[in-house]
Amino acid sequence: MFKKILIANRGEIALRIIRTCKEMGIKTVAVYSTADRESLHVKFADEAVCIGPPASKDSYLSMPNLIAACEITNADAIHPGYGFLSENAEFSRICAENGIKFIGASPEMINQMGDKATAKATMIKAGVPVVPGSQGLLESVEQGKKIANKIKYPVIIKATAGGGGRGMRIIHGDDEFQKAWDDARTESKAAFGNDGMYLEKYVVEPRHIEVQIVGDQFGHVCHLSERDCSIQRRHQKLVEEAPSPFMTDALREKMGKAAIAGASAIGYEGVGTIEFLVDANRDFYFMEMNTRIQVEHPVTEEIINYDLIKEQIKVAAGIPISGKNYFPKMHAMECRINAEDPRNGFRPAPGRITTLHIPGGHGVRVDTHVYAGYQIPPNYDSMIAKLITVAQTREECIVKMKRALSEFVVEGVKTTIPFHLALMDNEDFKAGNFTTAFIEQSFDFSTI
Amino acid sequence: MFKKILIANRGEIALRIIRTCKEMGIKTVAVYSTADRESLHVKFADEAVCIGPPASKDSYLSMPNLIAACEITNADAIHPGYGFLSENAEFSRICAENGIKFIGASPEMINQMGDKATAKATMIKAGVPVVPGSQGLLESVEQGKKIANKIKYPVIIKATAGGGGRGMRIIHGDDEFQKAWDDARTESKAAFGNDGMYLEKYVVEPRHIEVQIVGDQFGHVCHLSERDCSIQRRHQKLVEEAPSPFMTDALREKMGKAAIAGASAIGYEGVGTIEFLVDANRDFYFMEMNTRIQVEHPVTEEIINYDLIKEQIKVAAGIPISGKNYFPKMHAMECRINAEDPRNGFRPAPGRITTLHIPGGHGVRVDTHVYAGYQIPPNYDSMIAKLITVAQTREECIVKMKRALSEFVVEGVKTTIPFHLALMDNEDFKAGNFTTAFIEQSFDFSTI
Repeated sequence: MFKKILIANRGEIALRIIRTCKEMGIKTVAVYSTADRESLHVKFADEAVCIGPPASKDSYLSMPNLIAACEITNADAIHPGYGFLSENAEFSRICAENGIKFIGASPEMINQMGDKATAKATMIKAGVPVVPGSQGLLESVEQGKKIANKIKYPVIIKATAGGGGRGMRIIHGDDEFQKAWDDARTESKAAFGNDGMYLEKYVVEPRHIEVQIVGDQFGHVCHLSERDCSIQRRHQKLVEEAPSPFMTDALREKMGKAAIAGASAIGYEGVGTIEFLVDANRDFYFMEMNTRIQVEHPVTEEIINYDLIKEQIKVAAGIPISGKNYFPKMHAMECRINAEDPRNGFRPAPGRITTLHIPGGHGVRVDTHVYAGYQIPPNYDSMIAKLITVAQTREECIVKMKRALSEFVVEGVKTTIPFHLALMDNEDFKAGNFTTAFIEQSFDFSTI
Repeated sequence: MFKKILIANRGEIALRIIRTCKEMGIKTVAVYSTADRESLHVKFADEAVCIGPPASKDSYLSMPNLIAACEITNADAIHPGYGFLSENAEFSRICAENGIKFIGASPEMINQMGDKATAKATMIKAGVPVVPGSQGLLESVEQGKKIANKIKYPVIIKATAGGGGRGMRIIHGDDEFQKAWDDARTESKAAFGNDGMYLEKYVVEPRHIEVQIVGDQFGHVCHLSERDCSIQRRHQKLVEEAPSPFMTDALREKMGKAAIAGASAIGYEGVGTIEFLVDANRDFYFMEMNTRIQVEHPVTEEIINYDLIKEQIKVAAGIPISGKNYFPKMHAMECRINAEDPRNGFRPAPGRITTLHIPGGHGVRVDTHVYAGYQIPPNYDSMIAKLITVAQTREECIVKMKRALSEFVVEGVKTTIPFHLALMDNEDFKAGNFTTAFIEQSFDFSTI
């Protein structure tokens, strides 16, 4: 087992990793930018090294500084957390070259999943459903109609050079195809100097459901059931829960099998997440794989009683996993408490926390790095806490969340707490009727 | 179901009860003395009523003030918590007379269990083992020796009028009897003007193991397994855990049956605890019954996933319980965080909390009413928080407790945290080798 782990991260996840290391008897090294001098992860680690100024590129993203910090402190492994360098193939490679175990995926695995086209091809080969469409570029309207009729409308055509929503059109039937094709190509040519188009099935108001998997060095891969992360704004998750209210035993079986097949295809080691889009017919499509721990991992920990960070460290140390799949025994939910103003487009609201009361009691978990008097630096993401509740049923879990939110006091900065409180009272949310479009299209912000 | 519950208590238990009421959709009324104006239970309740000055007898123990607060606020029930009026038969009766449901035992039940002689007689009748001894007063040394030889030495003779450790002698054999008898009677006569003596088996270094029970208005009584509360100083519990490391399946079966028989004998309704002394041979003896919620109830909640306050309220409202016994699925432990100086005989250390960081993460629960800036009043008990950890095994539970204690920061007052940290490293404690004598006789206070 590792003797000392350097945590190449900050905030709640750094503290989260320190907690598990302490429970495993492993020493920890915190790293921090000058903006994070007063952060709890610095206080609670066995050692701490300042790695640079506030800008991430000069501190948390600085590979030389991180490697130097490992050498100074004699750390034998690095845990990258999420974000920052957690899915950086070069960093994974550099760690290996320096004889430091990167607690995450190998450079090869990261590359295979980082490039979307390669990832999609790998998944197709492994028999994992992907969003169907053209193989490469579309050659003509006729070919497009043929594929569209095969995979069924609506479809979307996208500029291969595109981005930012330009050069794409949603098409609902043959009669719309020619005009959409002409418009999209013209727009694409003008914007990108390239009118190459490809076609994919358009998944209407999908759910975002992801499967947590864990694999070891001996070829075992198992799944730890799913999380529903459909409550998002601008592709950023706000609430996650497990199990998904949309799930059936049969679908879980199928999605679990697909996730295991996908991860096995690249010989995946460690914890990882296969994200799927799920449509109203419960057809599901591979979206992407995250080769790291996710922000929302606690909901899985709570429903199956399993320390995912511990498992991650054990796997990295060459300890085999049990290999059996885990199914939900409870219902858990996580609300991300961000220093943002939900009444104002979730605009970041950094500042000093003057008063803080953290909820507690039966079935309530809080992962946070903040305290009364803490100054939230404007340099990093705005999440200040994760509030997790767990109960026998989804209904009880929501009631408990509402109670916990109502006693969560953060003064000095605006937070997402009022948004979450309103969400817990929303009838559609309570009924489990929501897709990734819910917050932006249906949620009534005047209820906050 | 009740519409509004008045909580006739303060501190963490008041907050604990508010939490469950919120989850059940029941309105709450907090009461507070002027010393508790800034307390969180006052802020988190729907309404709050000041019931008097700091002295308990004029506020939390003032029945007229409490009844008046109910009338003013239209509360239809009172939850007494623990301590204060929770086992006061007169208060239970007065509530009933005023048409307010007392969420606890009836006056008859409280009386039956409050008087030790009546309780013992009731238990004998119900077939529950009690500490064997003389039936009433001892008449002579000869009679004493006869009983002692039957129930086996050591025995203890106690002045019937005694108290404070005076007028009692432990006797290990026939040859010691005459002298002990003479000495104890002389001492008793001098101290209490009465030399009546009774005899009981002396339970050597017992464990304190209690069984949580719950009964309803329909005659169902079930047990929720046991808690081990042997870690005490001066009969005050410091650490509680479930299951007991001393427990066997066979003993749990026997103790559970005895507890149910005892509670059923008085037609018990509500949650309650039968406390037993257990000797090294795993023989157990009824000690007393508490007809209320206990401080340490969370360890039971955590091992079986059960909200005991919710159950208490449901039973009081006439809802039947499931009637099945619950067995531990996990291991849970509670450390009482008191504002006391453990290096100085646990002397109370009230004052202002200047800095506070409450531990979190997987398997950690904190029940507390304090916050940074909170002034601990000197008028009440010194407990400021309960730290509870839960894990698959006792070993993991201790490791988690150690980790959580190490990140529990309370500045401004001395606390029992350093004591608990040292205890978690104590080899005897870790091995489960301890009795109620452990802290006072074996624990090395220089390790703190």
